[in-house]
Amino acid sequence: MSTDNTEQSHQGATNVTYVPHQVSAEERKARMKQKGGVLWLTGLSASGKSTLAIELERQLHEAGHFAYVLDGDNLRHGLNSDLGFSAADREENIRRVGEVAALMAEIGLIVISAFISPYRSDREKARQAARGQFREVWVQASLETCESRDPKGLYKRARAGEITDFTGISAPYEEPEQADLIVRTDNMSVADSAKVLFDYALKHFSIPA
Amino acid sequence: MSTDNTEQSHQGATNVTYVPHQVSAEERKARMKQKGGVLWLTGLSASGKSTLAIELERQLHEAGHFAYVLDGDNLRHGLNSDLGFSAADREENIRRVGEVAALMAEIGLIVISAFISPYRSDREKARQAARGQFREVWVQASLETCESRDPKGLYKRARAGEITDFTGISAPYEEPEQADLIVRTDNMSVADSAKVLFDYALKHFSIPA
Repeated sequence: MSTDNTEQSHQGATNVTYVPHQVSAEERKARMKQKGGVLWLTGLSASGKSTLAIELERQLHEAGHFAYVLDGDNLRHGLNSDLGFSAADREENIRRVGEVAALMAEIGLIVISAFISPYRSDREKARQAARGQFREVWVQASLETCESRDPKGLYKRARAGEITDFTGISAPYEEPEQADLIVRTDNMSVADSAKVLFDYALKHFSIPA
Repeated sequence: MSTDNTEQSHQGATNVTYVPHQVSAEERKARMKQKGGVLWLTGLSASGKSTLAIELERQLHEAGHFAYVLDGDNLRHGLNSDLGFSAADREENIRRVGEVAALMAEIGLIVISAFISPYRSDREKARQAARGQFREVWVQASLETCESRDPKGLYKRARAGEITDFTGISAPYEEPEQADLIVRTDNMSVADSAKVLFDYALKHFSIPA
């Protein structure tokens, strides 16, 4: 039996052996009383992703679940602090979010990610990383609606050319073709939208007592 | 109130505002019935880090806690799959481990990391990332002991020059100067070493009922 398992083992080694975890995914689920999973919120800037994510996190917590929001706040300041905003860095940003979300879902957490993630290929990579635990949620509002909200004046600045490559204005948003859930925030209140998400999360990630 | 919070908000924005989480660290702790934290195991190859980490994870699970081992297995294949083994990539590997561990500790998990992490500066960065939740554990065994174990024949190959930059042989191991705990695996059995770690984890991360 091997007694160590480190990054160095890989170096030049042709037969890498790992010490397997002794706590199974099933045991983790039982302990957390829920199935882990990733709710991947995608949509335009100002479509309501973060507001919904934070509200859902709160509601799931109150219902006794373990949920966590991954967003620019907790990742751009830490794990992804080395990344800028070039196309390559944005892609890498989303790749890492997908990998971290997958890892946390494997542990049994309900992960709610809130990133524009405008490219199908990036979202598809995140889906692959989390295997069967991934649910794509399209937080949908028309560009007109999002632009009229414009809480930070970003659309205005994008229209003025002060921000380049702005999704929906000067960069594409590739609409989901296989969203597992669509939440129309231009037709629904935050409370109603959150209710839809909450019910969906319970249906897919809770374990009936 | 802002309604969105995405990576795009940063772009060219001078005043980045975030939607704060509505579940506090205190509430998470109460729900998990434990304080989150990082047990950072550092030591030579074959010192016993992974064996101890896996054993500790199992014991904490059985005691009703939420613990998770971060090691080469779950990171090199996912989050860090883009990294090689150059000095810069090794440093980045450990940086990301530290950031992910910090994030998971913030959620309330007891994270056990098992990496050689031979450089003080890298370990110090991980400590900073996890703020007060970090505990450095030196899994200590003499080079002679580790080399005599050599479960994968890596030391032998390093001595033969087939593996370069091998910690302890052809690359330095910077011994911890401020380890929070030292576990001497050359003097103790796996069971006894695990017991020391388990007691330490309970003392620092459990919340008395």
